[in-house]
Amino acid sequence: MASGKDGAAAGVSGVSSAYSTALAARRRSYGPNTSLSYEQPLMIVRGHGTYLYDDQGVQYLDCINNVSHVGHANAEVAASASAQLHTLNTNSRYLHPDLPLYTELLLSTLNSTSDKSLHSGNKGSSAGGCSDISDGCGSGGGNCSRGGYSGSNTRRSSSSSNVTFPGIQPQSQPQCQQQQQSQPPSSSPTISQPNLEVLYLVCSGSEANDLALRIIAAARPGATHIAVMGGAYHGHTSALIQVSPYKFWGQGGTGRQPHVHVVPCPDPYRGDNLDGRAAARAALAAAARAGGQLGAFLCESVLSCGGQVVLPQGYLKELYDELRSAGVLLVADEVQCGFGRCGRAFWGFQTQGVAPDIVTMGKPIGNGYPLAALATTRELAAAFSAPGMEYFNTYGGSTAAVAAGLAVLRVIQRDGLQHHAQRVGEFILSGLRRLRATYEVVGDVRGLGLFLGIEIVRDKASKRHAPATARWLKERMKARRVLLSTDGPYDNVLKIKPPLVFGIREAEMLLGQLSEVLERELTADVLHQLNQREDEVWASVYGPRYLQYRENERMLYSGLPHARL
Amino acid sequence: MASGKDGAAAGVSGVSSAYSTALAARRRSYGPNTSLSYEQPLMIVRGHGTYLYDDQGVQYLDCINNVSHVGHANAEVAASASAQLHTLNTNSRYLHPDLPLYTELLLSTLNSTSDKSLHSGNKGSSAGGCSDISDGCGSGGGNCSRGGYSGSNTRRSSSSSNVTFPGIQPQSQPQCQQQQQSQPPSSSPTISQPNLEVLYLVCSGSEANDLALRIIAAARPGATHIAVMGGAYHGHTSALIQVSPYKFWGQGGTGRQPHVHVVPCPDPYRGDNLDGRAAARAALAAAARAGGQLGAFLCESVLSCGGQVVLPQGYLKELYDELRSAGVLLVADEVQCGFGRCGRAFWGFQTQGVAPDIVTMGKPIGNGYPLAALATTRELAAAFSAPGMEYFNTYGGSTAAVAAGLAVLRVIQRDGLQHHAQRVGEFILSGLRRLRATYEVVGDVRGLGLFLGIEIVRDKASKRHAPATARWLKERMKARRVLLSTDGPYDNVLKIKPPLVFGIREAEMLLGQLSEVLERELTADVLHQLNQREDEVWASVYGPRYLQYRENERMLYSGLPHARL
Repeated sequence: MASGKDGAAAGVSGVSSAYSTALAARRRSYGPNTSLSYEQPLMIVRGHGTYLYDDQGVQYLDCINNVSHVGHANAEVAASASAQLHTLNTNSRYLHPDLPLYTELLLSTLNSTSDKSLHSGNKGSSAGGCSDISDGCGSGGGNCSRGGYSGSNTRRSSSSSNVTFPGIQPQSQPQCQQQQQSQPPSSSPTISQPNLEVLYLVCSGSEANDLALRIIAAARPGATHIAVMGGAYHGHTSALIQVSPYKFWGQGGTGRQPHVHVVPCPDPYRGDNLDGRAAARAALAAAARAGGQLGAFLCESVLSCGGQVVLPQGYLKELYDELRSAGVLLVADEVQCGFGRCGRAFWGFQTQGVAPDIVTMGKPIGNGYPLAALATTRELAAAFSAPGMEYFNTYGGSTAAVAAGLAVLRVIQRDGLQHHAQRVGEFILSGLRRLRATYEVVGDVRGLGLFLGIEIVRDKASKRHAPATARWLKERMKARRVLLSTDGPYDNVLKIKPPLVFGIREAEMLLGQLSEVLERELTADVLHQLNQREDEVWASVYGPRYLQYRENERMLYSGLPHARL
Repeated sequence: MASGKDGAAAGVSGVSSAYSTALAARRRSYGPNTSLSYEQPLMIVRGHGTYLYDDQGVQYLDCINNVSHVGHANAEVAASASAQLHTLNTNSRYLHPDLPLYTELLLSTLNSTSDKSLHSGNKGSSAGGCSDISDGCGSGGGNCSRGGYSGSNTRRSSSSSNVTFPGIQPQSQPQCQQQQQSQPPSSSPTISQPNLEVLYLVCSGSEANDLALRIIAAARPGATHIAVMGGAYHGHTSALIQVSPYKFWGQGGTGRQPHVHVVPCPDPYRGDNLDGRAAARAALAAAARAGGQLGAFLCESVLSCGGQVVLPQGYLKELYDELRSAGVLLVADEVQCGFGRCGRAFWGFQTQGVAPDIVTMGKPIGNGYPLAALATTRELAAAFSAPGMEYFNTYGGSTAAVAAGLAVLRVIQRDGLQHHAQRVGEFILSGLRRLRATYEVVGDVRGLGLFLGIEIVRDKASKRHAPATARWLKERMKARRVLLSTDGPYDNVLKIKPPLVFGIREAEMLLGQLSEVLERELTADVLHQLNQREDEVWASVYGPRYLQYRENERMLYSGLPHARL
């Protein structure tokens, strides 16, 4: 199997015996349903910034590892975690000064619903937001102090904390919040905005989302139904697979559970399912028809496995308003898109101007050191805690994890990575738009900051999904030492979500190579073969899945009994 | 709240402002149902070996942190993880030589059912076992090679791997296995022993046990009922709380789900529930009465939250035999007790001479670096994989986690920590037996290696649980700078499960301080007050719980409908 790397583009041939040994041992002894990327897997042994290096020293441009948020092997994060590993790495049953410091710092980034634009001239969607720790409130023209961290994250109480964090100068939250309170959102003024004042640190995004389900169950005991977005993936635990259509309607999935309702994912490219309010009403009605009541709606703020989908402006706001009126808890899954990646705001939900009841975070939070978090309101934390059951997470909030988390926030802010993501993301998007104008298979290009997608289609007229072509493009780009992945329910979206240190030079490299593949390699002959393959995979895999999603949509909106699919 | 540490014993008074600030911020902003140990929490800022140091430099003897398995801030593990963090820390979708190396090394420790005694004269329970990587097969008189790691963990195939691991010289598995095959276990020869040949790396013990549930569901689709041990805790995910009586019958628990059956935990001290075969039959019958079928039995090999209970010799073997005959999958949860802690064997299940279908591991595996694992058979991995759903775990199997895991195995073996645990554990147990002979409240002392428990009772005649006294002892020991914890369903068992570097000097310190507390501090007056407190907490908390467990036991064994408790 390990007979040779695809070395056509760069003259590499053959593999080392270490490679063959490792591949054979992995296939023999490691979970058979874990995957290795690419037809010929890469043995990656070193990383630096946004580059990866294989065992033969070949350099790859990494366009997809959003976990290595501030760069592979970032020296500052590694040094911070390492120093802590050499000093103390124990659990949160002992007090440690860095845990509450980190807790309040992280919480301070959350309590804004505004889309904090980095363009000083563009204030249209801003409401005096304080979300951008990389840019500070000052740059947006706000009147927030740039002094030391006040340590308070509550809007209502004056701070009694003297926590300071010399390395980061986030906005002074209370002042920002006062400013925001003086400018209430124009819609639904009667519904109070939840303040995210309590944090739980856990070990993985899956643990964070699973914890969200436990909090929901405690806070909404009678309302056991859950709504989720089509194509969503929220994690790998038993409970999360049940709320992840990406899994339960994906390969090997066992279908939808009766208490789970799938909101059809907006498809702005095709103009489908763009009405958030209608979606909310349909989900509420579906739960009622099934004899239940919605307790919560889980949604990634920008959809990742769903195909790098940016929700239409106002979509989530309308959906949240409608569901909140019905008492439904609103969970923003920021595991993939958070921590400044979206450019315009530190958190994806802020680009939609909404205020979730629960926010879950993961992947980029520790730059690869296992860490994740859940933020929620004091009320929900109280409901979860009231029965008296302790929540203990061995590694969650352990000292080295916190050290990594602190360093990540420090680097994002000091190096202005949110602003950088916005700038480089727009540069890439511009380039992708040029490719879209030129090539028939480039159906849609979209995204926020450095969270981008290229939807590959058979042709612009039909907009038919082209997963085989997307996969082929991914492999051809890999042969040119550029790492992309494919995703979406029909696997036809090329994902771009690199470490945030990805620069203009790297963007040019990505665009240049992609342009060359489309121009030189995707010949009429190749396309003809790919289209044959498209017919096959559509007939066998993606077509049936597509019909499943459409049938769900039809039943949900027609008010038919939402039969188990 | 942070008005002063309990400094009576050592003259420490007052707390730093950093302490007060951290405690206030933590209570304000961090999950309210997370706990801080001790009435006056400790702010621990440094660790070394089996000692912890607070922010004022006060040294504490750590008798409970089994996560820091090879010692707090172990330099070798920290350096190994740190070097990897500075080089590359990415996920398992890329091939990396250390992942399969670690995989096969870890698997090689598992495939023995024997209780590998370290006492050459005590071969009674051994069947030529090869489980003790810290001691090598040779020390037990076996004929296993002490040469380099062969890289194969399968009994059936010859190795095609050339993986070597210079730092560790585990037994050559195939030869050991041949030896074992020539000495089949005397009972149930017709039931084949599962070989644990496939590993999954995950992020936490909870993720490992939750994954076990997913594998069970895939492999036994019709058999949705699960049996667990009374008092057991298997993790914090939604699904695991349901199979953890420690939680669902503990504080804030919502009771047993109909598909979960609780095997009454053996209580050798009181002579209750010692028959494994009867327990198995009762669980099978209870599932049948509830209209279901048992798919699996989950059990810690030595019970931790259940109260440091060592199962009676032969108990698990009889239970396994009976359940295996009925097609039930057997899961050994080694999250707390594995990795040589039990002294007599590398894994707890090996001390019971059983062969699980699934083994889950966590806490000590990375010495605090978040890592956990699940090992299973090729058949079960195939059943889980067959539908085609990928299993992906972002941090599981990431390169730094593997580096930490490799270093932990290396240190355990090189420093002979399993043998050390056996030696020091026996020394402690001898000392505890002397205390038991002297003091009325020391009801039972028990354990394996450095996994020990002291059951505190009202008096030796009644054997009544004394949680208030246990808690008081814990606090008094803390005042003497010795850290213990309490556990068990009635919270009356003092736990001893220190880093394995805990030595004879530390054992003497522990025994000396405990002896002094019992002798000098537990006066008749104090005991009188404690007994009043015992009456209160028994009436309000532990008595009802005790009745719940007894009622479960009664219904299970009487063949009554196993009503939801």
